[in-house]
Amino acid sequence: MTVKRIDHVAIVVDNIDNALSFWRDALGLDMTHLEEVKEQESIVAFLPAAGSEVELVKPTTETSGVAKYLAKRGPGMHHICFEVDDIEETLAQMKARGVKLINETPTIGAGGKKIAFVHPSSTNGVLVELYQNA
Amino acid sequence: MTVKRIDHVAIVVDNIDNALSFWRDALGLDMTHLEEVKEQESIVAFLPAAGSEVELVKPTTETSGVAKYLAKRGPGMHHICFEVDDIEETLAQMKARGVKLINETPTIGAGGKKIAFVHPSSTNGVLVELYQNA
Repeated sequence: MTVKRIDHVAIVVDNIDNALSFWRDALGLDMTHLEEVKEQESIVAFLPAAGSEVELVKPTTETSGVAKYLAKRGPGMHHICFEVDDIEETLAQMKARGVKLINETPTIGAGGKKIAFVHPSSTNGVLVELYQNA
Repeated sequence: MTVKRIDHVAIVVDNIDNALSFWRDALGLDMTHLEEVKEQESIVAFLPAAGSEVELVKPTTETSGVAKYLAKRGPGMHHICFEVDDIEETLAQMKARGVKLINETPTIGAGGKKIAFVHPSSTNGVLVELYQNA
């Protein structure tokens, strides 16, 4: 069971242009693309930094998890995603240790990659995403 | 002006053993060391993942920024740190764009590395640390 790297840190924002004025223009990250991710009811800006990425996430509806997070807590860090080499094994290991999972089995995202979220109540308040490449 | 990588994501916790039971034992990150960082009034566990690191930060006083954050918001992601190649240039660039800085000039940390924090009011709610190797 291996964690390969931090894949991304997701930051929920209420305005993409305003967010880019800091993260791209002032900090100096490059933006590779801006994409509407329908399953996530969001527009996402992707800004890689070496092997990891900053993702700026702007909800496009009021019903998604990120939209509710934004309404309740305001803009800020939303989750951290780790790439793992075997997501089923990692989830089984977590389950055996009593970790509360949001997804007990992986969901399949774009390009066939497997994704699962771990509940913040088991992670010191951090929403953790796991992902395994297809 | 270049951002080299996400150096670390710091997570403030109220109990290191409890935090390690998730981040090390269940998620599977390795812990390289556990260290009392007196300037930060904290005990910090260092868990690398490829070129980045998760840092679990447990305040040892009630007066530090992390201690106040923990008391107010509970455990969770506290800040994200980027390694930059020229911290003075990055800070100048931010200042020119009206970004609010906590440290207008870098402070010198352990091993001579230069550090500065950017105020969350300019970063969509995220406490951002910049660091340049000595």
